[in-house]
Amino acid sequence: MANRLCEMFGIEAPIFAFSHCRDVVVEVSKAGGLGVLGLARMSPQRVDAELQWIDDHIGGRPYGVDILMPTTYQDAGEGEAKYDADRLLPAGHLAFVRGMLDRAGVPALPAAEAAQIERDLVSTFNFTPGESAAMIEIALRHPIKLIVNALGSPPAELVERAHARGIKVAAMAGAPKHAIKHRDAGCDFVIAVGTEAGGHTGSTTSMVLWPRIVDAVAPLPVLGAGGIGRGRQLAAALALGCEGAWCGSIWLKTVQSEVTPEVKARMFEAGPDDAVLTRSVTGKPCRTLRSAFTDAWDAPGAPEPLPAPLQAILWWGQGRTRVERVRAKEFLTYPVGQIVADMREETSVRQVVQDMLGELSEAKERLDRLLG
Amino acid sequence: MANRLCEMFGIEAPIFAFSHCRDVVVEVSKAGGLGVLGLARMSPQRVDAELQWIDDHIGGRPYGVDILMPTTYQDAGEGEAKYDADRLLPAGHLAFVRGMLDRAGVPALPAAEAAQIERDLVSTFNFTPGESAAMIEIALRHPIKLIVNALGSPPAELVERAHARGIKVAAMAGAPKHAIKHRDAGCDFVIAVGTEAGGHTGSTTSMVLWPRIVDAVAPLPVLGAGGIGRGRQLAAALALGCEGAWCGSIWLKTVQSEVTPEVKARMFEAGPDDAVLTRSVTGKPCRTLRSAFTDAWDAPGAPEPLPAPLQAILWWGQGRTRVERVRAKEFLTYPVGQIVADMREETSVRQVVQDMLGELSEAKERLDRLLG
Repeated sequence: MANRLCEMFGIEAPIFAFSHCRDVVVEVSKAGGLGVLGLARMSPQRVDAELQWIDDHIGGRPYGVDILMPTTYQDAGEGEAKYDADRLLPAGHLAFVRGMLDRAGVPALPAAEAAQIERDLVSTFNFTPGESAAMIEIALRHPIKLIVNALGSPPAELVERAHARGIKVAAMAGAPKHAIKHRDAGCDFVIAVGTEAGGHTGSTTSMVLWPRIVDAVAPLPVLGAGGIGRGRQLAAALALGCEGAWCGSIWLKTVQSEVTPEVKARMFEAGPDDAVLTRSVTGKPCRTLRSAFTDAWDAPGAPEPLPAPLQAILWWGQGRTRVERVRAKEFLTYPVGQIVADMREETSVRQVVQDMLGELSEAKERLDRLLG
Repeated sequence: MANRLCEMFGIEAPIFAFSHCRDVVVEVSKAGGLGVLGLARMSPQRVDAELQWIDDHIGGRPYGVDILMPTTYQDAGEGEAKYDADRLLPAGHLAFVRGMLDRAGVPALPAAEAAQIERDLVSTFNFTPGESAAMIEIALRHPIKLIVNALGSPPAELVERAHARGIKVAAMAGAPKHAIKHRDAGCDFVIAVGTEAGGHTGSTTSMVLWPRIVDAVAPLPVLGAGGIGRGRQLAAALALGCEGAWCGSIWLKTVQSEVTPEVKARMFEAGPDDAVLTRSVTGKPCRTLRSAFTDAWDAPGAPEPLPAPLQAILWWGQGRTRVERVRAKEFLTYPVGQIVADMREETSVRQVVQDMLGELSEAKERLDRLLG
């Protein structure tokens, strides 16, 4: 495709795949797109191992990494204190989550195991600048071609170091003003995220947001994110002025995906209203599969979710592990966008890419017929 | 344009304009699209006069009407009782609105005038099947080419009568299941309304909703609604499988528009987050310009909005007239979609259509370059 982002990375199709799963990253890059591994919640050791695995399997194709580098954050505390849920998290919030699961008959974890999980969890919640920096040092030892900052503009020093090695830098934006900051910070392109996206997102829809961001940072290239899982949606992104697509949710339905069979089964039954925008899983507005957990925070008398990253530590440490242990399906959740309503059966990453490109061609032929 | 909806109506561009303003209807049809007059809140006498004016000015071009024909509604009561706000509306809700405006120094209307407004208002809130039917009888005396039902599927008898006269019938859908009902009711096409639209709307975005509805009712034609104000968005609608666009908000910025200069000025300063989805103006989720009135219903301790049409009668009868009388800008609101963020200056209907078609051509040329 005659496209600036295809030329930038030497790829065949401007399909960028965000995934926490190395298999998806490798398969997308091998299928002609560009896989981007999300590093959030990985320990530095694990990051190194995952990237080494990708290097061993990707056959020299380009790939990237996605790192959370927040400009503002609430420090989780230092030293031993930060590993103690009862000190870190308000008693009312702990009681709310523990009570919800107790009443549903989800057994508590043994105390020693729970403490270990808390320790691992807090130490791998790489939301501080120091933790992000350590992650970047490891990533830079691998042949990555792209670094994406999922929270705010990348620091100038990082942009300089990346560019000196021929690595491109990008960042996510939910509003034109953020996109302009990213451009001014030296980003090579911007990812415009509509409200229909899974994960952290704003309130403006892709249809309205993408052309606004395209115009705000022109001639810098823009990827459309939020609502793209098929070729017609990729065609729409190109029609709206984007250079390609940033997709996350669609890979969750693949055999390569990291989600459990239970979560996958719930996604295959979900409607668009089951991808709810909630602060209950991370503390920031995050679109995620509706569950008894997300519903509970909307009920009368529920506490306000904590600021990030405390709410995430609360859910992961106090809720998710307990729930997954006994596969308590009704409480399971996972970030996913409104296209979950079109995800009805398991397929392969390669098939998703082929279907997307096939439908893109059909959409182009249709436009040719309609518009001459 | 080689397009089924253009052929259906003998129009040049598949741009359908919903407006409460007869001037917009006439100008859009004369510019090559199809104007559709919203009849809600008009008395039968006024409907007749408006359509006569259109007939006198539209030069034989096709146009349509949009009628609220709800399948479920709360009856506002019969006889004299329905004209008495203090009987019709809960005391707590009346006190909430009156208190809000009293505290803001917005003067109450003289009692006799307020009573007259209530009477006119309730008698013109044509939300009952009987009132809709009377409206349709009047519309059928005019050379309309299209009847759109904004709430639910049109009754079989109406579809039959319309088709017998060569009039097409359509209806709005926010989910595939509603679109299928409309198809089965005999609609000639369906209008798929994304959450970004102004007015009554659901929660699924246009990017996700339109292709789902296109596939659900294929080969029936679908118009995309919600988020279309420019040519790239029209191109995206066509790429997503729609046959054209149903636009409402964009006309509010024209010199022909019915909105007051004060509301227009507020729209020209609004961001996308200022088009809020709220039940406070009609009782159903309706995207409207954020104001001190819409905010008040989100505040702690505010009552739940009443069911439709009572909440609309509450706002129009108790709030809007008082607010408009003294031009209390902070309380003014008007249904508008997220594209309000792109509406920065006044222009003409003809210019909007020309700009849309010009940018549509540019988008097509861009796709030709990108996709060969």
